[in-house]
Amino acid sequence: MSTSDPSPKASKGTERLLELYAAISLDGFLARPDGSVDWLEDPAFALNRADGSPEDYGYAAFYARVGSTLMGGETYRVVQGFGGDFPYIGKDNVVFTRQADPPDDPHVRFVQEDPAAWVRRAKSSPGQGSIWLVGGGQINGILLRAGLIDRMDVFVFPILLGQGIPLFGKAPIPETLLAGAQATAYPNGVVHWRHERTPPHHA
Amino acid sequence: MSTSDPSPKASKGTERLLELYAAISLDGFLARPDGSVDWLEDPAFALNRADGSPEDYGYAAFYARVGSTLMGGETYRVVQGFGGDFPYIGKDNVVFTRQADPPDDPHVRFVQEDPAAWVRRAKSSPGQGSIWLVGGGQINGILLRAGLIDRMDVFVFPILLGQGIPLFGKAPIPETLLAGAQATAYPNGVVHWRHERTPPHHA
Repeated sequence: MSTSDPSPKASKGTERLLELYAAISLDGFLARPDGSVDWLEDPAFALNRADGSPEDYGYAAFYARVGSTLMGGETYRVVQGFGGDFPYIGKDNVVFTRQADPPDDPHVRFVQEDPAAWVRRAKSSPGQGSIWLVGGGQINGILLRAGLIDRMDVFVFPILLGQGIPLFGKAPIPETLLAGAQATAYPNGVVHWRHERTPPHHA
Repeated sequence: MSTSDPSPKASKGTERLLELYAAISLDGFLARPDGSVDWLEDPAFALNRADGSPEDYGYAAFYARVGSTLMGGETYRVVQGFGGDFPYIGKDNVVFTRQADPPDDPHVRFVQEDPAAWVRRAKSSPGQGSIWLVGGGQINGILLRAGLIDRMDVFVFPILLGQGIPLFGKAPIPETLLAGAQATAYPNGVVHWRHERTPPHHA
């Protein structure tokens, strides 16, 4: 385990962005109560681009600018449950955990620090790409309450889960008007919302 | 108080439609915990059409085809709290309530019957326009669970309320894939989802 190590070279205007890039149901859930997200792969949502390739909702372009991924311990366990290799090999992958003895994973740094403190320091270490807030709800809520999310790309799928893990977890969040948010609808009923904080945040 | 009285002249294919036409926040809430919905009027969401008139999200066309409105007792109290006249004068306005002694309101019929039973009977009384399921969450959930909602027009506003009244209330609803849902994005970030049940429901 390491503690976080982006060095604190604060530089206004060149901070790394903290980006939430996530998919939710129409009733606002990231996942079913057990963390499962296979509903995202339902054939009803299959969509190809004009060239016949599967629609990726801008993921490839987004992923290319990501330097670090952040997730909570519960999301890490869900990701591990997918089987196969860790999905973000080659990025700086940070998992926040309260486990004293986290598993051995060569692709991940386990961090016990407060996520908001870690992000504040990481933002001032420019030139390392965006920080992708992978989730889940609990860490999303912590970083929303801390005012640290710079950009949200939220994809809403036309399904009602009825219950599950809310986008920002179960702890209260303040009412937040996403003024200036832009929405784009796909032919399969999926909608992409983008909201960028203005004025830009300089911690 | 009257009990319901649409006469049961069942006629397959000409049933009245039960339409949910509602606005929610991006995190899935119809209203704040106290029922307030003034966030819908936030200037950040103001939008005019090409001719300069305020965007009405298709409300005038929708309202013209409505014959009856349905709401629960809590929503009725919120609507009364707006002050002014009852907003749907001229429609057949039905309020489901468990109050033994409802208020005297010339514009409303108070009904103590189960909403699903009422709707099943009303649907088979054709020629009286659509039935607008005004809400709130509790009655929406009852009628979703009963499989009686024919069309959903859900407008999602880019705001996080953090807490409030879920679109289908707090009681569990089954996972519901809205296959074939179509989404339309407005320039102010509001999105209109329409889902029509297929094959058409004939009770």
